[in-house]
Amino acid sequence: MNMTFESPQDAEDAFYDAFEEANLENMMSAWADTDDIICIQPMREQVKGREAVSQTWQELFASDAKVEIEIHHQHWLDAENIAVHVVHEQLIINGDRKHKPPALIATNMYHQTEQGWRMLLHHASPPPPPPMPHAPGMTPGVSPGMVPGMGSQRK
Amino acid sequence: MNMTFESPQDAEDAFYDAFEEANLENMMSAWADTDDIICIQPMREQVKGREAVSQTWQELFASDAKVEIEIHHQHWLDAENIAVHVVHEQLIINGDRKHKPPALIATNMYHQTEQGWRMLLHHASPPPPPPMPHAPGMTPGVSPGMVPGMGSQRK
Repeated sequence: MNMTFESPQDAEDAFYDAFEEANLENMMSAWADTDDIICIQPMREQVKGREAVSQTWQELFASDAKVEIEIHHQHWLDAENIAVHVVHEQLIINGDRKHKPPALIATNMYHQTEQGWRMLLHHASPPPPPPMPHAPGMTPGVSPGMVPGMGSQRK
Repeated sequence: MNMTFESPQDAEDAFYDAFEEANLENMMSAWADTDDIICIQPMREQVKGREAVSQTWQELFASDAKVEIEIHHQHWLDAENIAVHVVHEQLIINGDRKHKPPALIATNMYHQTEQGWRMLLHHASPPPPPPMPHAPGMTPGVSPGMVPGMGSQRK
């Protein structure tokens, strides 16, 4: 199926519909037809190019888990033929709405091509941990336990 | 200081120099002069706008830790006046090169403005965990332990 998306939102809807349906063909139709596409799944290495991006979704869709996704838009950016949506992805696994995993944060970048709007980049990452009583001046991504002495050096 | 960056790479160099020097003024000079800027620190909520982005770096720079950063470019994207660099950020804390934390993955997006190239978006996130023997068909960001029953349902 080769669809033409009139807006970044149309491309985004197609992307998440394909994600929910585990439909690889529709998923790849939401991406630009170029090897300049980049996909970063949470806690995975980045991949670039249609073959590698297709492969990463194929692996994901191999799961038997039924995934529903609620999208909550956080920020939008528009610059010429580029649009960026920062969203929270609330996954619901096997219909279990009582035990939702923490929502992921994703940056989705779209490009207006001759075939309409298509996804150029998807970078999804884990959400913040639950709030802690007091954690000032931390280095991002570096928890005190990861670096010997950090977190205890403040004067 | 208000600098003009002739290329996305110049803006990126200024960004990481300011990061290493914990220099808030230089850091904010690397970002576009618009409230459409977005910053996602690892495991933190996204923030938008110059005030919020400045605040997030100010908090980070409050640490006494001396941070050096080695940047390893993974992928570049160019589209009109937009450039995207996907990089690995290898942090070195307090000069300790023997115990480096795992490198972060970052998506950096730059925009060509009337004041030269500036950062529009920074999304940094944790790296993949160490390789596991066999983990097929996992939902990204959802470890088997997070969702009851997942990981044991494959037929």
